[in-house]
This record gives sequence, structure tokens and C-alpha cells, in this order.
Amino acid sequence: MQFFAQNVVILGAGLLGGSLGMAMRQRNLAAKVSVWSPSESTRAACAKTDWCGTVYSSPEEACQEADFVIFCGPVDTIPPLMKRLAPICRPDCLLTDVGSTKARICAAGDQYFSGSRKATFIGSHPMAGSEKSGLPHAEAKLFEGKTCILTPADAPLEPLRRLRSFWSALGMTLFECLPEEHDRIVAQISHLPHALAAALCANLSDHPAEWKDCAGSGLRDSSRIAAGDPRLWSAIFRENESAFRESLSNFRKALAELESALDEKGDESLLQFLTKARDYRIQLNRGNSCDE
Amino acid sequence: MQFFAQNVVILGAGLLGGSLGMAMRQRNLAAKVSVWSPSESTRAACAKTDWCGTVYSSPEEACQEADFVIFCGPVDTIPPLMKRLAPICRPDCLLTDVGSTKARICAAGDQYFSGSRKATFIGSHPMAGSEKSGLPHAEAKLFEGKTCILTPADAPLEPLRRLRSFWSALGMTLFECLPEEHDRIVAQISHLPHALAAALCANLSDHPAEWKDCAGSGLRDSSRIAAGDPRLWSAIFRENESAFRESLSNFRKALAELESALDEKGDESLLQFLTKARDYRIQLNRGNSCDE
Repeated sequence: MQFFAQNVVILGAGLLGGSLGMAMRQRNLAAKVSVWSPSESTRAACAKTDWCGTVYSSPEEACQEADFVIFCGPVDTIPPLMKRLAPICRPDCLLTDVGSTKARICAAGDQYFSGSRKATFIGSHPMAGSEKSGLPHAEAKLFEGKTCILTPADAPLEPLRRLRSFWSALGMTLFECLPEEHDRIVAQISHLPHALAAALCANLSDHPAEWKDCAGSGLRDSSRIAAGDPRLWSAIFRENESAFRESLSNFRKALAELESALDEKGDESLLQFLTKARDYRIQLNRGNSCDE
Repeated sequence: MQFFAQNVVILGAGLLGGSLGMAMRQRNLAAKVSVWSPSESTRAACAKTDWCGTVYSSPEEACQEADFVIFCGPVDTIPPLMKRLAPICRPDCLLTDVGSTKARICAAGDQYFSGSRKATFIGSHPMAGSEKSGLPHAEAKLFEGKTCILTPADAPLEPLRRLRSFWSALGMTLFECLPEEHDRIVAQISHLPHALAAALCANLSDHPAEWKDCAGSGLRDSSRIAAGDPRLWSAIFRENESAFRESLSNFRKALAELESALDEKGDESLLQFLTKARDYRIQLNRGNSCDE
């Protein structure tokens, strides 16, 4: 089944929304791609692109005739937008999102888009962002070879097959789980690494400025994600607060394990800890390569 | 002043030692480069390279006629080796190292190589390693464009100028400080990031294996250094234990700051924390790019 839509609407045209528009055009996945953005300058920028057919200044107007809608704004803006669009969308419309959290978004999706006369919402999380944000960094190949997590829960089969074929058509590998499971996983593999990078940088900024002249690629790579948009990330931490706090507390335990290995006279526990870490990291290279 | 040596001896031919040999040959910095390695297989591999003139099975024999000696083995092996070589080295010999810690190594250097009739030791730390180790990963361009930290303390001017010209000839930017200061800096910018990456991976290895299928480039980049050699890193943590422990305790404070920002109802402190981190990280990109 090759994905094809007549009227796609991208709600929010930042890094992910813009890249989706480009990728859909490049792969000829839609007859028409339209955009709504709350930002006037983003709407103006979209109007100048070759992938965007119509730019709307209201999401309701944009979605009236849509058969595929993708929420691409910050995670906390998605449920209020769903509420506005639920009475508007056609029953055959499929809606999804690209948010980094899923439990609250999918609960809102269930609330606003359930019942046989309604459109269908199924959550998606393409692991394809970066520390960069905004339309100027968008690129058609952003999704290629990366993983997309779908959280279908009780979604009907036909829209789910359609959604799978969409992300597959962008070159993504699919991973499916429940929304709550998704949030526990990404808390650990994405939100925690972001928090560590941010804490590392916040901490370093209290030290003499010339220390950064000594920085090597170890520090650069391990802290790269800390350059991400604070507004996006504070919304993510809030949306996924309980799983995120749990991942922080798990991490504290791992750090305590390292410290107690240091307390021992011999190096056996220290070597064991570092070897366990290395084995995991080497294994990680064997998966498909993807960004988040 | 263009660096040039007659008889260079590399003690330990792993990633850094091997790369030094290659780079010196490529840039024609020495009449002859010799190697001693405690490993028979490394000695055999060196004998087959185009940059290695003679391979020695004893460090004493290797260093007898040397005018430039570089310790390239694990940090804890350097002081015992200095003790063996102090009675052997010619008075005009300059010795340095590539170790990731400096206080203990430079103290041993002062002990074994001080006085006007003795050779001179000055500590170096080229920030040019990676998570890879061993001769097979060595490359001539490893040092280009990166930072080398020198810790001369009371070194006489002539050998210091010679050492500066050596690392500069390899394309490195120099940074000079006291050995103890070096150790505090690298604890924070190199050893701490390594510990965080290792704790992140050790922690993740306790979670379901399929979680790694969801991993994005955020996790990959922030954990890359955790794939480093456990033996090398446990020696580094031990050698720099007090500054390393201090950096861990600093980091705990930064993490606690993030958690108390989360405890607040509003997002102001959270945004402030993430913005401070982002500003630091963006600034880091403006320095010269270098590896460690």
C-alpha cells in the first residue's frame, strides 16, 4: 500500500513540519500540502516554498477539507488545537502528530476523535529532530533511515495501516507501543540525555570562560542537544513529568553506583561498570541510525 | 622555530602513539622515529609501518640515544616508566606525554627529571583521543585543528619552546596551565562527560533491549564516549580522583537545580536553566573544533 493523500494539512511549520512538507513533495505523497502556523513570519516563509500549496491563518479553515492532518507544534499546544478541530474534520480524516510525548496527547486524541462518525487520531513520534529548530533548518531527508514510534492503542486497522504506510514512505523504520510505554522509553533515551547535557552545560557556564578553549569532541558531542530550544524542552519535561522524574532518579542510582565503585580500593567494580556501559554503547551502533 | 628531532621514541603505540608516529613522518619532523611497546603484537604491527624506524623490546634500550621521548601509555604506567628511564636519558633529551591527567605525572616528572644534568620532562595533553583505541585506528591527521594543553610549571624556557613548536607543528592550538589546574579543568570538561555517558549506558542496559531500537542521534551522540576503553578510563578516574569526585558533586548540584525548577509551578526557572545551558553550548561551537 503506497501512501497517498489529497489534502494534507501541516499544523505548525518548524523543523519537523517544514521537513515533512519537503519530504512529501519530493516523494510525491500528496496532491496538495497546506500549512497553518500561528506565526505570521512562518506563514509568509511557507508561502514562498515550492511544497506548500495554501497557507491558512486559521487551523479550522485549513482542516475543513483535509484527509490527513499532522500536528507539528510544541506538545502542549496539541490538545487545545484538537479540541478546536474535532467538530471540523471530515470523518475520513486521519490525524497524527510528531510530538515527543504521547500519553497526554493520545488521551486528548481519544477524547476528541473517538466514535464511528469522527475522524481518527493516532500518535506518532518520528525520532528525527535535532538541536536545531525552525523552518530554515528543515530538509527533505530528515526522516530517512530513522525510527518512528507509533502509539496506536485501540486505533482501527485501516487508518493505522495508512499511517504506517505514510512513515514508511518517508523511509522510516516503525516501532509500535502504548502511549504510556512510549513516554517511559523516551524519558530514558531522549529526555534524560537532554537533561544531562543541559545540566553539564549549565554547570560549566559557572566555571572560567577559557575552559571552553580546552573542550574536545567528547564534551561537544555529549552536550550537543543542550543547544535545543528551551521552550520546546520545558514543555516536553512538563508533559512527561512523572516518567522524566523517574528517569532522573534512575540516573542518580547509576551515578551512585559509579561513586561506590570509586570508593572501593580495587578497580574491579569500576571496570565492571565501565565495561557494562561500553558493551551497551557498542550494541547501540548496531541498530539503525536515527536522529531525534 | 621549526621543530625537528633526530631520535624520537614513542613509548606505547596505541591510538595516540601511532598517530604521532604517522603525523611526524608526514610532516617530516624527525630523522628517525622508534617505538617501544609492552605488547608483542603491537611491536610486530609497528615494525610493518612506514613511519617506525626501529622497534625495541626494552624502553631503556629505546631511549638511550633519544633527544625526544613521548610517553603514550595509560596514565598509571607513566611514573614507573619515568623511574626506569631517568638514569638512561641524555641530558639534552626532552620528554613529554599524552596522558589525560597531569598532577601525578608532572610530580613524577619533577622527581625523576630535575636538576641541570638531567633530561627535561614537561607534561602535555593533546585533546585528540576518541572512543576508539589502539594502533589500527591511528591516523596522521588526528591532531590537526585541536587543542593541546601544556603544563610546564617551572620548566626551563628552551625545552618549553621546543615542546610548543612540536605540538604547533602538528597543527594544534596551545593552552598552558599548571598541572593541578589542568586536572580540575579536564575533570569537568572530559572526565565528567565520560562518567555521565557511562552512567547513562549502564542504566539503559538494565532496561528492555528493544528500547535501543528507538534511540535517536541525541542518545547516540551524548553517549558515544561511553564506548571508550574501560581500562584507560578507570586509570584516568583513579589518577584524577579528587578533582573527578568534585566534578561529580558539582554535577549533582546542577541536576538538583533542574529538579527544583521542575518542582516550581511555573516554567520560569526551568526555562532559565535550559536557556543558560543552551547559551553555553552555542558559545562552545565558536571555539576551535577539537577532539579529546
